[in-house]
Amino acid sequence: MTRPLVFSDDRLFPADERTRGIARALYGQVKGLPIISPHGHTDPAWFATNAPFEDATDLLLAPDHYLFRMLYSQGISLDALKVRSKAGVPDTDPREAWRLLASNFHLFRGTPSWLWLNHVFSQVFGLKVFLGAETSDLYFDTINEALATEAFRPRALFDRFNIETLATTEGPQDRLEHHKAIRESGWGGHVVTAYRPDAVIDFEDERFGRSFERFAEVSGQDVTTWKGYLEGHRVRRQAFIAAGATSSDHGHPTAATADLSETDAEALFQSLLKGEVTPAKAELFRAQMLTEMSRMSLDDGLVMQIHPGSHRNHNVGLLASHGRDKGADIPMRTEYVEALKPLLTKFGNDPRLSIILFTLDETVYSRELAPLAGHYPVLKLGPSWWFHDSPEGMMRFREQVTETAGFYNTVGFNDDTRAFLSIPARHDVARRVDSAFLARMVAEHRMDEVEAAELIVDLTYNLPKKAYKLDQRPSWARPVQPIKHAAE
Amino acid sequence: MTRPLVFSDDRLFPADERTRGIARALYGQVKGLPIISPHGHTDPAWFATNAPFEDATDLLLAPDHYLFRMLYSQGISLDALKVRSKAGVPDTDPREAWRLLASNFHLFRGTPSWLWLNHVFSQVFGLKVFLGAETSDLYFDTINEALATEAFRPRALFDRFNIETLATTEGPQDRLEHHKAIRESGWGGHVVTAYRPDAVIDFEDERFGRSFERFAEVSGQDVTTWKGYLEGHRVRRQAFIAAGATSSDHGHPTAATADLSETDAEALFQSLLKGEVTPAKAELFRAQMLTEMSRMSLDDGLVMQIHPGSHRNHNVGLLASHGRDKGADIPMRTEYVEALKPLLTKFGNDPRLSIILFTLDETVYSRELAPLAGHYPVLKLGPSWWFHDSPEGMMRFREQVTETAGFYNTVGFNDDTRAFLSIPARHDVARRVDSAFLARMVAEHRMDEVEAAELIVDLTYNLPKKAYKLDQRPSWARPVQPIKHAAE
Amino acid sequence: MTRPLVFSDDRLFPADERTRGIARALYGQVKGLPIISPHGHTDPAWFATNAPFEDATDLLLAPDHYLFRMLYSQGISLDALKVRSKAGVPDTDPREAWRLLASNFHLFRGTPSWLWLNHVFSQVFGLKVFLGAETSDLYFDTINEALATEAFRPRALFDRFNIETLATTEGPQDRLEHHKAIRESGWGGHVVTAYRPDAVIDFEDERFGRSFERFAEVSGQDVTTWKGYLEGHRVRRQAFIAAGATSSDHGHPTAATADLSETDAEALFQSLLKGEVTPAKAELFRAQMLTEMSRMSLDDGLVMQIHPGSHRNHNVGLLASHGRDKGADIPMRTEYVEALKPLLTKFGNDPRLSIILFTLDETVYSRELAPLAGHYPVLKLGPSWWFHDSPEGMMRFREQVTETAGFYNTVGFNDDTRAFLSIPARHDVARRVDSAFLARMVAEHRMDEVEAAELIVDLTYNLPKKAYKLDQRPSWARPVQPIKHAAE
Repeated sequence: MTRPLVFSDDRLFPADERTRGIARALYGQVKGLPIISPHGHTDPAWFATNAPFEDATDLLLAPDHYLFRMLYSQGISLDALKVRSKAGVPDTDPREAWRLLASNFHLFRGTPSWLWLNHVFSQVFGLKVFLGAETSDLYFDTINEALATEAFRPRALFDRFNIETLATTEGPQDRLEHHKAIRESGWGGHVVTAYRPDAVIDFEDERFGRSFERFAEVSGQDVTTWKGYLEGHRVRRQAFIAAGATSSDHGHPTAATADLSETDAEALFQSLLKGEVTPAKAELFRAQMLTEMSRMSLDDGLVMQIHPGSHRNHNVGLLASHGRDKGADIPMRTEYVEALKPLLTKFGNDPRLSIILFTLDETVYSRELAPLAGHYPVLKLGPSWWFHDSPEGMMRFREQVTETAGFYNTVGFNDDTRAFLSIPARHDVARRVDSAFLARMVAEHRMDEVEAAELIVDLTYNLPKKAYKLDQRPSWARPVQPIKHAAE
Repeated sequence: MTRPLVFSDDRLFPADERTRGIARALYGQVKGLPIISPHGHTDPAWFATNAPFEDATDLLLAPDHYLFRMLYSQGISLDALKVRSKAGVPDTDPREAWRLLASNFHLFRGTPSWLWLNHVFSQVFGLKVFLGAETSDLYFDTINEALATEAFRPRALFDRFNIETLATTEGPQDRLEHHKAIRESGWGGHVVTAYRPDAVIDFEDERFGRSFERFAEVSGQDVTTWKGYLEGHRVRRQAFIAAGATSSDHGHPTAATADLSETDAEALFQSLLKGEVTPAKAELFRAQMLTEMSRMSLDDGLVMQIHPGSHRNHNVGLLASHGRDKGADIPMRTEYVEALKPLLTKFGNDPRLSIILFTLDETVYSRELAPLAGHYPVLKLGPSWWFHDSPEGMMRFREQVTETAGFYNTVGFNDDTRAFLSIPARHDVARRVDSAFLARMVAEHRMDEVEAAELIVDLTYNLPKKAYKLDQRPSWARPVQPIKHAAE
Repeated sequence: MTRPLVFSDDRLFPADERTRGIARALYGQVKGLPIISPHGHTDPAWFATNAPFEDATDLLLAPDHYLFRMLYSQGISLDALKVRSKAGVPDTDPREAWRLLASNFHLFRGTPSWLWLNHVFSQVFGLKVFLGAETSDLYFDTINEALATEAFRPRALFDRFNIETLATTEGPQDRLEHHKAIRESGWGGHVVTAYRPDAVIDFEDERFGRSFERFAEVSGQDVTTWKGYLEGHRVRRQAFIAAGATSSDHGHPTAATADLSETDAEALFQSLLKGEVTPAKAELFRAQMLTEMSRMSLDDGLVMQIHPGSHRNHNVGLLASHGRDKGADIPMRTEYVEALKPLLTKFGNDPRLSIILFTLDETVYSRELAPLAGHYPVLKLGPSWWFHDSPEGMMRFREQVTETAGFYNTVGFNDDTRAFLSIPARHDVARRVDSAFLARMVAEHRMDEVEAAELIVDLTYNLPKKAYKLDQRPSWARPVQPIKHAAE
């Protein structure tokens, strides 16, 4: 029962003809704009080595927790999907793993994965029939053949995708060698890093010990003293800045911040280093470190991103067998008003600081985040994140945030993905949903067409560049054409 | 000012003509499908005795807490509505009670009761004018005349409503005699029970003492020992399974689960039995019993339903005068991520277990429930429940759950009602809202028509049968015609 | 780049032509109805003295926290906006301050301020071009010229705005001299006060000491004894009632209530008076005072309003430099089910009491507030408040509240504003959003047109009058024409 994969140009636009027409026109203005990807998790090795991707399963299925978590929820084993466990990559035939995705593709109806994958299948690989049991091999072969060609090497796709800037995310213990290789390669693609120090800040993280050791080595500081530890961060932040970083990123369980005296902070650090780790002390240390990172940002200008609220590795059995990042992270209720107060009391009115807040708890959009960002000069709101990086999720974000924070306290879209091929799909969804939202505003006479035309360009291109300080390109990156403002 | 009661065939479909057309077509495919009602609170005595219903007030008003809670909120006494108190059924003229409903029917504008009642009035009783003060007697007389006829006996209505399976809910202390009578009657209507042990698990329930005594008698076990108590549950679950049960149901204040050692569990039970009841101990026991019930499900296959989060009997004065279930249950904030972790750590990856989660706290749809169900193989999501069993509530459920959990981690519709006559109305609302939701997805090109056509049949018919294991009918129940898949 | 300010007659109506037509018709029925403003913060001195307003900045920008909080969030200093600090009103040129608003007006796109201001600009001042850098002086001059005319004096605007009743809010320590002057002036505008005792109830309020002293003076009671303190409230409530008050208002951090014995209440009061103030004791005292205020309402009939959940003065630095009410109040998660239980247990079924609940936490609409108001006779729900007093916020309120509480447990619109000129704009937005909501209900056949026509008049005019007991006008106020019910 093969049927055509029709991927309409009007997808994600409201059905009402009047509004759809406005949405089409707005989207038309930004459809071709370059992609600014200021936060994500692609592997810099891809762009450093430019080696070909392996096969459909290895590239699209086995590393994508959106896909295997859904399949797992319906009783399909991770081994059968060739997902790496602690024992290594299972010896599953990748074609058979792909067939499991194909024959269960109906599970993704109504999910963003359906949109992203069908975009990749149709726009990137040119497939013209729906994925299903009977087309599984056609897909597997078509994709693999393409991946073997020059046109599907990472750098070629980067160019084809019209990516102006792409940020990856590394830890302080990372030597950033791939970024060095990219810089020195003469290729000119603007791939930068971001400073994500969680693994050397969170004493409860199972990766802490090994990361801390490497942090000591790489930073060349005596990180077992409080001063040396902070200096280690300063040193590594400088190295990251040299590798193009304009932001740091902090994925703590909560948004708690603290403002301890230097004496208390030092004592806490020493106690934790001695192994006196309790949940409360680990939490207080993470909280203090957000304030310390803010203080460093006053000097070095890194924009802070705070991504709190994920209960990591909720599935205890799966963590034991497969390790982290296996689709078992679950959002938690997250509080910001009290949590951020110590940090905001200290630096909340300082124009040198910029903090971008994210959440997995949509209830805070209208209650906490929009009121905070609509007042404090240092705060901006990141786009809808992770489970909410989807058409309905993006629309709820705009509907619940805009009336209090406006558009200009938001920072455009983040794809936040390790699924490189889905980047154009994800940005396309964001551009379409923003067009649809603005179109409704225009159709309901809550905004005029001139304002909407300016906004769609700002939301797509200008705001992320400005918020993440990506206006200045280093000499090794290719220059970009300036974007004329749509309304000019 | 009598005016016609027009109940449009297009009700609940979006106004946009394009989308409405798609919704109409989808609904057309499932309008006539049999009703699967896997969870509800009708009285099995109705089907066992097939006695006629008494009158409009007795059948439609006095037992319906949706109706009398709203009237009570506007200052109308429960006595005037002939609602039973601890002193018995008030000596109110049922015609006068009905007049209070009629003359205050405007209070129900915008509520699901308006939809359900107007469905019952127009579709079940053939009434053609709106209910109001001036039509009160017409309604009262028309309904009563109908109820006196054979066509309005419970079994005749069951058949007219095209109910394929109807589950009631009973406690372990219930001897299930009505279900026995139904089974042995030769009628063939598939009416089954469900195992709801709250009253013998919750030491804080005002019904505990009497229920526990009867549980001891009916189970024939020494339920004052921990082993005997668990064995009592096992014995009664078998008896319920013999009466067609495929599910258990648990209506605890919270979703807390626990995984105590056998020694600790036994000590806790003995302490509570001795009367050492504290809120914390009662809560821990309920939590432990969810895990015990899961363990039993591994053996006997009962699907677990968890319905947490109701603050029962919030109105202290009304509880004293009228007892429980008088419209004074209020939802509370409910947490699932930490609460379910002990149970999920123990059994969350076991394919023999199936747990259906419900909530009265809509904030958990996108934040907790969809992520949990989109990962754990044992979890599915029940439909929007109780206060949220309404067009807007159902739509929010789909909008907030689907993108993370998909459709196939949900289980179709539950009417969950004791209002027998409203069952077709409630299922009709669900079918219409699902059609409207899918129609929007199609109109926005987020799904194609073939997928939507399959889904509407799955949501209406296949998913509830599968999730509640109602595929196998016992020999005493009439056979059913297989439903061809809409997309075939 | 001047462009016309077109303020469409169809603003805020759904784009779908069918639904828009119904919305237009409904709105047409209430567009011209008088304004009932039962809760707000205008200055009674305006109507007592009828002095002209000063200039555009002084009237529209410097006192409006919606405006300066957004500008501040983007790095503009409050001094530059001529916002009063503790050092007094800054010596900024008001024309320059206005230019900052004008050149940053794009920040308000998508916010209700955009709607309110453009309504004021176009409908009140007759401006025909958009506000922007190049039209800033035109605006400033046009507005100032108008304000100097008789037609823009407070009383003239009151009449032009077709305000039937306007309530202000004062503390118990206020002598209500402006209200006396209005009453005795012979003008006849129905301006009344409301009793807001927070500053003499909340021992944590920075205004407590001075307010308490004045409360002692004005009430003439020995308010340092528990009995005298309560008597002081009774005396002042009578004085407020004499000044037209029909309601009290309570803006506590939480919705907590308590029911202490008289002995315990007295001891708590005495301890706090002695300066033994802890957060827990201050909270318990506020909680007890809600119950005391309810008790007084049983006797004197004041309708209680509870406005909980604002974290006041979150920005510590700004509080130090500029004092309270500077846009730094942030909503907090707010619980009602347990919080209100002591009060509801005591008085929840008493027909003499009426309590109107508000929230800044939208998550409680469907979970807590609608179920509570849909059961307890004393409870009604106030409209969406403050950050949620906006098109999307109002729509969420209706969508999330109506199905459980109906329309008749709500009380119509509150403008709740100190921005006098925006009052017509705000009521217009509410009338349009309610028309749009009802139009969708009609278009989806969930209500018929007769019901919607009755409802729009009830929501606009009848419900606020009834809920706030404004049906009776005092002899000094001009009589009003009775409104025929739209559906008659």
